[in-house]
Amino acid sequence: MVQPTPAIDIDRLRRSLDGVNAFGFNAVTGGYNRVGYSDADMAARAWFADEMAGAGLRVSRDAVNNLFGRFGPADGPCIMAGSHLDTVPEGGAFDGSLGVCAAFECVRAMIDAGITPKTAIVVTATAEEEGRFGGMLGSQTITGAVTRDWIARASDSEGVALTAAMQAQGLDPFAAPDAAWRSGAIRAFLEMHIEQGPVLEQSGIPVGVAHGISGVCHLQIRFEGVANHSGTTPMDMRADAFAGLVTFAAGIPALIAELGTDQSRITVGKLNLEPNFAHTIPGTAEFSIIVRDTSEEVMRRLRTAAEARIADAAKAHGLTVSSEEKSWLPPVGLDSGLHALLRGEAERLGIACLDMPSGAGHDAQTMQSLCPSGLIFVPSRNGVSHAPEEWSDWAEIEKGASLMLAALTRLACE
Amino acid sequence: MVQPTPAIDIDRLRRSLDGVNAFGFNAVTGGYNRVGYSDADMAARAWFADEMAGAGLRVSRDAVNNLFGRFGPADGPCIMAGSHLDTVPEGGAFDGSLGVCAAFECVRAMIDAGITPKTAIVVTATAEEEGRFGGMLGSQTITGAVTRDWIARASDSEGVALTAAMQAQGLDPFAAPDAAWRSGAIRAFLEMHIEQGPVLEQSGIPVGVAHGISGVCHLQIRFEGVANHSGTTPMDMRADAFAGLVTFAAGIPALIAELGTDQSRITVGKLNLEPNFAHTIPGTAEFSIIVRDTSEEVMRRLRTAAEARIADAAKAHGLTVSSEEKSWLPPVGLDSGLHALLRGEAERLGIACLDMPSGAGHDAQTMQSLCPSGLIFVPSRNGVSHAPEEWSDWAEIEKGASLMLAALTRLACE
Repeated sequence: MVQPTPAIDIDRLRRSLDGVNAFGFNAVTGGYNRVGYSDADMAARAWFADEMAGAGLRVSRDAVNNLFGRFGPADGPCIMAGSHLDTVPEGGAFDGSLGVCAAFECVRAMIDAGITPKTAIVVTATAEEEGRFGGMLGSQTITGAVTRDWIARASDSEGVALTAAMQAQGLDPFAAPDAAWRSGAIRAFLEMHIEQGPVLEQSGIPVGVAHGISGVCHLQIRFEGVANHSGTTPMDMRADAFAGLVTFAAGIPALIAELGTDQSRITVGKLNLEPNFAHTIPGTAEFSIIVRDTSEEVMRRLRTAAEARIADAAKAHGLTVSSEEKSWLPPVGLDSGLHALLRGEAERLGIACLDMPSGAGHDAQTMQSLCPSGLIFVPSRNGVSHAPEEWSDWAEIEKGASLMLAALTRLACE
Repeated sequence: MVQPTPAIDIDRLRRSLDGVNAFGFNAVTGGYNRVGYSDADMAARAWFADEMAGAGLRVSRDAVNNLFGRFGPADGPCIMAGSHLDTVPEGGAFDGSLGVCAAFECVRAMIDAGITPKTAIVVTATAEEEGRFGGMLGSQTITGAVTRDWIARASDSEGVALTAAMQAQGLDPFAAPDAAWRSGAIRAFLEMHIEQGPVLEQSGIPVGVAHGISGVCHLQIRFEGVANHSGTTPMDMRADAFAGLVTFAAGIPALIAELGTDQSRITVGKLNLEPNFAHTIPGTAEFSIIVRDTSEEVMRRLRTAAEARIADAAKAHGLTVSSEEKSWLPPVGLDSGLHALLRGEAERLGIACLDMPSGAGHDAQTMQSLCPSGLIFVPSRNGVSHAPEEWSDWAEIEKGASLMLAALTRLACE
């Protein structure tokens, strides 16, 4: 007997996403506010758990409030699919939640088609992916990467401790290390996510399949010069901390052209001048440099060269430098077998598909340490994310979700 | 009979400055706090008035609390000498007060030498020179430049109205327009001030004589791009507001080399990025550009070219620009006769002396609109001012004060 072909019901997927986004919506700004362990985050999860239970999935939660909806065999290894339900403050409607709802829709499509998978499918809504507390707590709990030390120390940008935030929601933070899944329990992890960048849109391709995630190096630099009077100090007698930064930053395009790749990104995103008065030469400039590439060797090369050029700029402007590497996340290569499977299914379905890296971090990169993981992108309008203007086209979402459904069917039913 | 030669008593001048600086000193920071119409400013003036009266000067105050100490003929025109007693918040010990104390010391030296001037000398401690309320209220009152409208509207950076600040000290703000001195009442104005820049120190010359004051153009620029994710947005798909500023600012040295003079200064002192997150491409950059030169034509040329290059940078980075000229103060030429007299007296006294412009604003530039005005500089250590580290060497101060004394003697006694 030929298996019936399951199909995505895009309207149901849309209603599901609307249901999640009823929680934490700010009607004034148009932004969504479900930061990890906020009341809105908790309420959205409770609602989504009910939705999954209503569809016949066996629902469970773990110590950090990762939500699981199991479909198919009650025992044995599973295929996991999902993303996160939490948002950044004033975030968009699609980031994370779309992937959760898409995974749920895939399972509902299978149920509608009367399919019973040989291997269970677990729809997952991970907790605290957006890094309120500086990590990806949900997926790191699943993979066993969370330590008691980290839990005890983690706090958000306003000084709220992770432990306090979790306890306020009735969760036991120190149970997290025991919530790890054992090796082999998850055969594969699939995530669909908005691209959060302009590449698919500008290419006119509806779906991306990521082969890896860029690494990120975060340098914090402080230039110190002298905050003299802008009128009385001739140009050649200044120690202008901002002018030093300009000398460095003006060389970024050449630095990438010389030592980087088309996947290299160097960004100065945060900058504070002191005293920051119009009539005073900036005495200090404290700024961030984010270096990204899909190759760790390229990242190292760019960092070394950036540091040398920072030192040169400081010398040229009579400044002292202090430099701190705040973090170094190496690039992650996603499973090549799963990547090939996704590309093959896309071809079979006639969905044009771009092989691309991910410039942003996702649960899939964490999951890859435990099991083969795959990441499907759908285009973001104007490349915008983490903002109320975040938008993805429903026709393209349908293609991405259909690819996920095809891959899940192949993984769980064969 | 040969006139006795008056001489500066540098220790007395120093004690006088110490006396002023007993008011508003912050022992924690080392800074001096006598902002205009503060209690400390008022108390310092009361003390200084007593000092002048004690030395035999006829003391008076005007509507805005400018302080005058008259020596010599009670009637007729005068030679005025002095500076201001107010400070910026957490300012230094020398800015303004040194010039007031030096003028007073000149008169005391004449008294000691038994000199009676033919023309009265009026020692002046001007009010509110540092611009708490956005002007140079003291000298502008003397020259008749203050209007009722301006008085009614002026407020400080914390929103305190000038009228409220003056009334709280028992002063009638709207009496200021009637406190102007009539044309001819002041034959000349002399001010000694610290340079507040590094030129004299680096030249190894103890005294400067200013021929004019640089003009100041304050532009406020806002670049708007798109605040996208620093990882997902390729370098060539960005609209990075900070990168636009870097493109402009990197060209400032070339702009001055091409269209400016050795007196040109272009400073980006204040800058705010949004959202100012390390991992986000700056969506907006709002910054100040201060253009200064001693020639108004050069200032116009630099402003026009700067605006064109800002537009080019915006275009190159896909940004929109808004630009506002916050203020335009034209350069002021000081009286050439008085300048020649000061240079001649310096030569006669064997004091090495640099002919220079002033990069900062001073009461002398306001006074020039009413009467011939002259400005003497003494070196600032490391060019620092408006900070507790402000310092000038007493041997050099003695030379500057001696030059002022010689000039006053010539102006008032011949």
